[in-house]
Amino acid sequence: MKHNAIVYCQGAFNTTNGKTAHGLVRFTERYNVVAVVDEKYHGQDAGMVLDGKNFNIPIVSNVTEALNLGKTKNLSIDHLVIGLAPDGGKLPTSAISEIKIAIQNGMNIDSGLHDFLSDNSEIAKLSTEHNVAIRDIRKPPTRDKLHFFCGKIEEVNSLKIAVLGTDSAVGKRTTAWLIVHGLRAQGISAEMVGTGQTAWMQGAKHSVIFDSLVNDFVSGEIEHAVWSAWNDSKPQVIVIEGQGSLMNPAYPSGLEILAAGRPDVVILQHAPRRKEYDGFPGYPIQPLHHQIQAIEVVSGKPVVAITLNHENLSSQEIPGVCATMEDIVGLPVIDVLVDGTDKLIEVLRSHL
Amino acid sequence: MKHNAIVYCQGAFNTTNGKTAHGLVRFTERYNVVAVVDEKYHGQDAGMVLDGKNFNIPIVSNVTEALNLGKTKNLSIDHLVIGLAPDGGKLPTSAISEIKIAIQNGMNIDSGLHDFLSDNSEIAKLSTEHNVAIRDIRKPPTRDKLHFFCGKIEEVNSLKIAVLGTDSAVGKRTTAWLIVHGLRAQGISAEMVGTGQTAWMQGAKHSVIFDSLVNDFVSGEIEHAVWSAWNDSKPQVIVIEGQGSLMNPAYPSGLEILAAGRPDVVILQHAPRRKEYDGFPGYPIQPLHHQIQAIEVVSGKPVVAITLNHENLSSQEIPGVCATMEDIVGLPVIDVLVDGTDKLIEVLRSHL
Repeated sequence: MKHNAIVYCQGAFNTTNGKTAHGLVRFTERYNVVAVVDEKYHGQDAGMVLDGKNFNIPIVSNVTEALNLGKTKNLSIDHLVIGLAPDGGKLPTSAISEIKIAIQNGMNIDSGLHDFLSDNSEIAKLSTEHNVAIRDIRKPPTRDKLHFFCGKIEEVNSLKIAVLGTDSAVGKRTTAWLIVHGLRAQGISAEMVGTGQTAWMQGAKHSVIFDSLVNDFVSGEIEHAVWSAWNDSKPQVIVIEGQGSLMNPAYPSGLEILAAGRPDVVILQHAPRRKEYDGFPGYPIQPLHHQIQAIEVVSGKPVVAITLNHENLSSQEIPGVCATMEDIVGLPVIDVLVDGTDKLIEVLRSHL
Repeated sequence: MKHNAIVYCQGAFNTTNGKTAHGLVRFTERYNVVAVVDEKYHGQDAGMVLDGKNFNIPIVSNVTEALNLGKTKNLSIDHLVIGLAPDGGKLPTSAISEIKIAIQNGMNIDSGLHDFLSDNSEIAKLSTEHNVAIRDIRKPPTRDKLHFFCGKIEEVNSLKIAVLGTDSAVGKRTTAWLIVHGLRAQGISAEMVGTGQTAWMQGAKHSVIFDSLVNDFVSGEIEHAVWSAWNDSKPQVIVIEGQGSLMNPAYPSGLEILAAGRPDVVILQHAPRRKEYDGFPGYPIQPLHHQIQAIEVVSGKPVVAITLNHENLSSQEIPGVCATMEDIVGLPVIDVLVDGTDKLIEVLRSHL
């Protein structure tokens, strides 16, 4: 059952800091998103602002307004989801006040912030008084719940596909979900293994929060998530969301996703107009052929397709760019946001 | 000032689980090792058991015996160092009893175990009563003391050498120290950046405990450690200890050591007679040429020499094995434990 939820994104909607909110308004199996909070876009539809399509998710100015909206629709809203990553990592006082209002109205709070809300003594106290849960998604499980790698991954006989990227924030998660849904639409059972907090919030049942894991447990937790996805429902396909990018200087490489998740094939998401690592000017992204070679050498498994992030490309340019890329790297290049996943799934079918 | 210390290694000396103890008896700037505890080798010299050389470090059966030995030598022993990694991660009850005896005799405890001794309420209480410190080396620093990657690594103009390995527990750290000491002996200033608890225990001033870091901070902490080693004393050479091995299924890849530590050259430690990853039968170690290729592709930097771990090779075999390996991979292959580091430093001089 989906929880009725408000996504809090004050001051950050339609900016890179609002990535989690964008994921949630586009798609989530975990919540029914009733409204987004960001006064800048007050009165507009979240989908219209983001993608020029009506998603029927109004943007409101504050939590109280969202609650009133719920009442007029006769919906009981029981979750507030923090859908922003504030600059500097700290929530402003105004956000804390809004969270308190939500708690006082009986709402549970889900947060993927680095700073744990449950460590805020006022919020913790208030949540106890109102009998609601504060769920800090990034809080790693206690050690007794973590797994070391043990080799049980070898039992998994689903086709395992890893969706990696040539940079962070390049669209790996969106592509991974599109593949899962495309496979299901063709009658092929598929499960998503999420590796970030947004995938968790979108409802990926078998998820790790990769960035928040203690290094020693990364391989074992990835193995366990993939194994659990298989053990639960024996899907024909398991799609593993990549994290960061292999040679990024600033973020975890995610090589453990290959070494411990042991995918059979890799799909690589690439933004051809992006020249430097996101947020790190002076660090050029290695050329696409180099990135493919790196993945294939360290994993021993093939990259079977490139998925395109068309940022800074006009819709007129996309077909030509895809054709040229195909010509150079010798792999299918597909813009799944524009063209859907049918062509990609044709490629994957030969590995089933 | 070095602390007089007993290294506790009951049941694990001269096995891969005794790696920390081995490091400490071979070399440490942090402690004066008075004795090793492991009843199996009672009465023998730790160096003779390990390397066939007398280190003047007796092996005794228990902590009480070690304390008595200290008394006869008129040494006040103030530290017990846990020098083993128990199978399954948990210390047996007998070890806990021995630790209590040490505390009751006024000794501080240094431990690199996953399970924090300071979380054991009995041990915590006893240490307060006896006014001694329990130092869990793997306990990660709090978030406000951790660093994100920022690019300051580009300021470092020392020659940066990473000592990687084709497996875990293959001798990377020992080789790294030998290089540091070999360089210093030739009048070249050199600093060690440690990445494991043993290097810390051996006194590497600029260290991270790689396995215990939260993933998000791995790159930034490596950058900060290398930068700090440079900023402190501007050495001509910085040697960075590798962790795990790039394609090991079970442990962190350590790729961030290449991506964020940005070494100029790589030295690769290899045990030619080891066929499967340590502790993971069924997972063959990729051939040496594949490992070299993987490192060079992901880092863009050259592997300039192979250092040999001669386990399961007779001393008669070593020269022939080295010559054959040199012939195949086209790189100098050096057994630094047997032949020292002069030949290796000759290779490095051309990069200074």
